[in-house]
Amino acid sequence: MEELSKSTEKTESFVISLIQMKTTQDKEANLNRAQELIETAVKLHKPKMVILPEFFTTPINSRNYQNYAENESDSPTLNLLQSLAKEHSIYIIGGSFPSYKNDDKNKIYNTCFCLDKTGEIKTVFRKLHLFDVNIPGKIVVRESSRITKGEDFGIFETEFAKIGIGICYDIRFPEYALLLRKEHNIDILVYPAAFNTVTGPLHWEILARSRAVDNQVYVVMCSPSRNYENPNDYQAWGHSMVVDPYGQVVTSTGIEEDILVARVDLIKNNEIRSSIPVWFQKRWDVYNLGKTEK
Amino acid sequence: MEELSKSTEKTESFVISLIQMKTTQDKEANLNRAQELIETAVKLHKPKMVILPEFFTTPINSRNYQNYAENESDSPTLNLLQSLAKEHSIYIIGGSFPSYKNDDKNKIYNTCFCLDKTGEIKTVFRKLHLFDVNIPGKIVVRESSRITKGEDFGIFETEFAKIGIGICYDIRFPEYALLLRKEHNIDILVYPAAFNTVTGPLHWEILARSRAVDNQVYVVMCSPSRNYENPNDYQAWGHSMVVDPYGQVVTSTGIEEDILVARVDLIKNNEIRSSIPVWFQKRWDVYNLGKTEK
Repeated sequence: MEELSKSTEKTESFVISLIQMKTTQDKEANLNRAQELIETAVKLHKPKMVILPEFFTTPINSRNYQNYAENESDSPTLNLLQSLAKEHSIYIIGGSFPSYKNDDKNKIYNTCFCLDKTGEIKTVFRKLHLFDVNIPGKIVVRESSRITKGEDFGIFETEFAKIGIGICYDIRFPEYALLLRKEHNIDILVYPAAFNTVTGPLHWEILARSRAVDNQVYVVMCSPSRNYENPNDYQAWGHSMVVDPYGQVVTSTGIEEDILVARVDLIKNNEIRSSIPVWFQKRWDVYNLGKTEK
Repeated sequence: MEELSKSTEKTESFVISLIQMKTTQDKEANLNRAQELIETAVKLHKPKMVILPEFFTTPINSRNYQNYAENESDSPTLNLLQSLAKEHSIYIIGGSFPSYKNDDKNKIYNTCFCLDKTGEIKTVFRKLHLFDVNIPGKIVVRESSRITKGEDFGIFETEFAKIGIGICYDIRFPEYALLLRKEHNIDILVYPAAFNTVTGPLHWEILARSRAVDNQVYVVMCSPSRNYENPNDYQAWGHSMVVDPYGQVVTSTGIEEDILVARVDLIKNNEIRSSIPVWFQKRWDVYNLGKTEK
């Protein structure tokens, strides 16, 4: 029962704010808007943690990710998030933005930085599964033509919760979420994401609830808002959402810019894990799931 | 693209009937009722395949499974199903009933027999994950105290579809379903099942839809009906259901005895698999999933 007793240590409840912001073509304006909304959330909700959406600085499907990409060793976006985390003493899951390492602009990642309340970078997660889809007559996207895929798991450990990180399309891969739970005993899964008006109505909510039920964790999905002013831009689904470990939607919003607040109560994780103890009943003698050794 | 071309071979659509029947204490009556409902389904829907619920001969949570259990080499239930399959030229997924092998009545399994249209037994699946739950103040069940767990995967191969079989609680284990898809490229997942009035409203539909979306397969859940006449008996959830590979509910029923019909169209599997090709995008270089070698 080691796993259960480990998870029952965390019984604190805490408040999170999700920033469903509009992403425009103007990166400077996006950063200003992110700051404004984070500061509003801090005043309004006094959150312990603030979560931003995928590509909150950068129009998705833009042809020029290179113009938006930042060098990780000298990143204005990262600097801003670090200073906001420190100033307001909040943990930040920084959505994602296109970034590159070691001046190598040929390898741009879709990257999520997770910061503690001193502004220190605790976790850098690079999107593992790139969004290459072709729904005839509706949408064709080939993220892999411009983004390099990540290689590592995203685990953001804080003193109040252990958080697994995925970005958007990563949520369609149950193996990744299951392994975050199996190997790292996460409490929450957070997906900065930007589904669209085709895939959103199909699968946004069912995927969030699936991951919650199967892993008995909270699931947080943070999306950009819709962008009606620029109908030729990628239209994110919106509908940012928090789901509890029973798979019930705690709160969700619509398609407009919004700040969503939720209280995360890890006692719920303990309740469902002890009453329906699937994680003690896995048939590892019949099937197995693991990280692949490199 | 081998996997895709393999799956595109099956483009036939076909009709299935689900028998949501009431399970009483009287096994003889249950068998007669099963026959009656199967024959009605045949007349009404002309199905290619008929599916029965979990423990359709045996009250769930009965203290005397031994009284209901049948020797697999001389089983009245199996004989009936075989003769019905042959007579009506239908495939039957025989829900489940308690059975034992080689006269060993100390090892009773929760067993699903799958028959082809000649009445031949093609697949014997024994429930892998036993229903041991404890939801305080609501329900306590310990199936493992009376049932022996199975060791093998359930794959029922027909000329019109490759079907993965699980029984009830097995649906809570995504690894099993994922492996049926990964290793056997199944088209349909069929779960004879009997959730109850506590776990049913929580998770019946979300689990069916989750398995469908993650595996891009049809999911069929066949339950006994509610049993109001005997309020002290186990009350099955009912709500038998067919979900398409997009995760949309095709049809479902309520809590009464009913025969549910659905057309399964495997072209939908091909559509979703080619438009959102997650099964070609798995990061097996990062994680792995496999059968455990014995």
